Amino acid sequence: MSKPKRVTITDIARLAGVSQGAVSFALNGRPGVSEQTRQRILDIAAEHQWQPSSAARALVGARAGVIGFAVNRPAGTLGTEAFFTDLIAGVQSALAERHIAMQMVLVSSIHDEVATYRRWRSANQVDGVIVIDPRDDDPRLAALTELALPAVVIGSHPSADGDPAALWLDDSQVAHSLFDYLSALGHRSIVYVAGPAEFQHTRLRTDVLRGLTARSVTGEVIATDFSPVAASATMRRILSRADRPTAVVFDNDVMAIAGLRIAQEMGLAVPGDLSIASFDDSVVAGLVHPSITSITRDTFGLGADAAAFLLEQIEVAELLDDRVGALPQLTVRESTGAPR
Amino acid sequence: MSKPKRVTITDIARLAGVSQGAVSFALNGRPGVSEQTRQRILDIAAEHQWQPSSAARALVGARAGVIGFAVNRPAGTLGTEAFFTDLIAGVQSALAERHIAMQMVLVSSIHDEVATYRRWRSANQVDGVIVIDPRDDDPRLAALTELALPAVVIGSHPSADGDPAALWLDDSQVAHSLFDYLSALGHRSIVYVAGPAEFQHTRLRTDVLRGLTARSVTGEVIATDFSPVAASATMRRILSRADRPTAVVFDNDVMAIAGLRIAQEMGLAVPGDLSIASFDDSVVAGLVHPSITSITRDTFGLGADAAAFLLEQIEVAELLDDRVGALPQLTVRESTGAPR
Repeated sequence: MSKPKRVTITDIARLAGVSQGAVSFALNGRPGVSEQTRQRILDIAAEHQWQPSSAARALVGARAGVIGFAVNRPAGTLGTEAFFTDLIAGVQSALAERHIAMQMVLVSSIHDEVATYRRWRSANQVDGVIVIDPRDDDPRLAALTELALPAVVIGSHPSADGDPAALWLDDSQVAHSLFDYLSALGHRSIVYVAGPAEFQHTRLRTDVLRGLTARSVTGEVIATDFSPVAASATMRRILSRADRPTAVVFDNDVMAIAGLRIAQEMGLAVPGDLSIASFDDSVVAGLVHPSITSITRDTFGLGADAAAFLLEQIEVAELLDDRVGALPQLTVRESTGAPR
Repeated sequence: MSKPKRVTITDIARLAGVSQGAVSFALNGRPGVSEQTRQRILDIAAEHQWQPSSAARALVGARAGVIGFAVNRPAGTLGTEAFFTDLIAGVQSALAERHIAMQMVLVSSIHDEVATYRRWRSANQVDGVIVIDPRDDDPRLAALTELALPAVVIGSHPSADGDPAALWLDDSQVAHSLFDYLSALGHRSIVYVAGPAEFQHTRLRTDVLRGLTARSVTGEVIATDFSPVAASATMRRILSRADRPTAVVFDNDVMAIAGLRIAQEMGLAVPGDLSIASFDDSVVAGLVHPSITSITRDTFGLGADAAAFLLEQIEVAELLDDRVGALPQLTVRESTGAPR
């Protein structure tokens, strides 16, 4: 995961046995490290012929005081995805006390997003960006490196060599925590009502469910557009089958609540006849009756961590090592139990 | 509602019998109006000694391509208020196709907000701002006028003379649509579980409920912090009383869903024993069982209208007349009925 060819602050930190922040303070002549440590760091830097990166030079004295967030979603779905609100609120929490603003723009494609980064860079409009939904051979990552625009990529994998730094968490471990639990309760027929198949986390979750065949679990995946309407229609269909499943897992809380309503309409007891769970938690998921077993993720904290990580990279003007986000946890509530 | 001392684009539009946009096109020498209309507009402008405002001159050729939104809320509550997500999504929908970004910053006080506007103005960082939660003698409005920073104020009242333009809707009419309906169903004891008392819309709704004494309705208002925890505690308390109400109205959907759960826990039938309603609607309010009667507001549309109104003012570089937003509607669902 170490990417640079030249000596970086990360290398110096490792050699000196101190934090990257301490190296940054020392090299920039700012308080925050002892005189001894500062001297040791400066010696190591000199010995290894450390030089500030071009990004660092470009940024000196020319901070915009703004970080950018380009969102590749239709405006209409933005309001229904709790993920965005929570992420943005978390980002803002990290920026607020430093009076740094977040600039947000909706883009219509990944190429539009790359063009936005170029425009932001050339106008010096933002000091760095937060990137979501990374994919294989992602043209955004190469563009950000080329533009020397500091970035933090929120995803499910460590960054590849030469790519911007990642703040990632292991989504397949998260999927295991839910599917393994249902399997341990005795469920042998589980339906996963997913979002669009092209999402990385949909694939990860599908793989985990399909991997449960060793435990004699039959897993079925049904792709939807994330809407409650699709969830309701899907639920009516699968609950009308002779071989209906004993557990249904939804990709988000709104779909799960829609599914719960259909089960109740059709006279099924939850969890007696059917267990229901969700990969996204919300306040309301804990308030409906029965309350819904969910994966609880600290998206607010993720946003705050991503923003803090980005500010740190802008500060040191250098690529820092990837970081691992806090792993989401399974919150068991009233909607799951052993099958009858 | 006409504020300017000098002749404005609004005046010229009225005199010429054309839209403000047409006047802007004509005065700026851009296509979009016929040659005849252009000449008529130019004649009227000359006759009335029209001059571009100082804001217009300041902005020529120096657009930031960014609008600002300073939010005076703790980061932690931002994610739970659907209002913000929907408003932001609507704003983005109006900006997206023009590649204009929204810059958002959390501020800790109204004075912090004014300071932010000054900073944005002096750095030419935004072309205009959207302002929410107007109050009496609002220092932000005077500051925006002084800074000649285009603005749209989203509120419950028309703007005062000299203040920035308002996009407003009549919140007391909205409150009437819900409270009058419950009164017409036969409810004589209604509790309103409100947010903090200092909010303008809390006061408006309280006044409407208290005004129903003429119809022999006893209205009680209980202020909370908007949280589901407060809603649950309040609900347990009022449902334990000998003289419990027959209808409870909550300020938002999450509180209403929390209240519904408590009623169910306490063995009350909704709406047989108790009607429940909410001043905020959401997808989930329509999915829980029983689904919750709510005021449905098009906050997405409000955000889109506010952004479009702001862009128009930035374009004409002049104060335009107030606009009235679409009035929210009462959506009757399963949670309300006549008292037994």
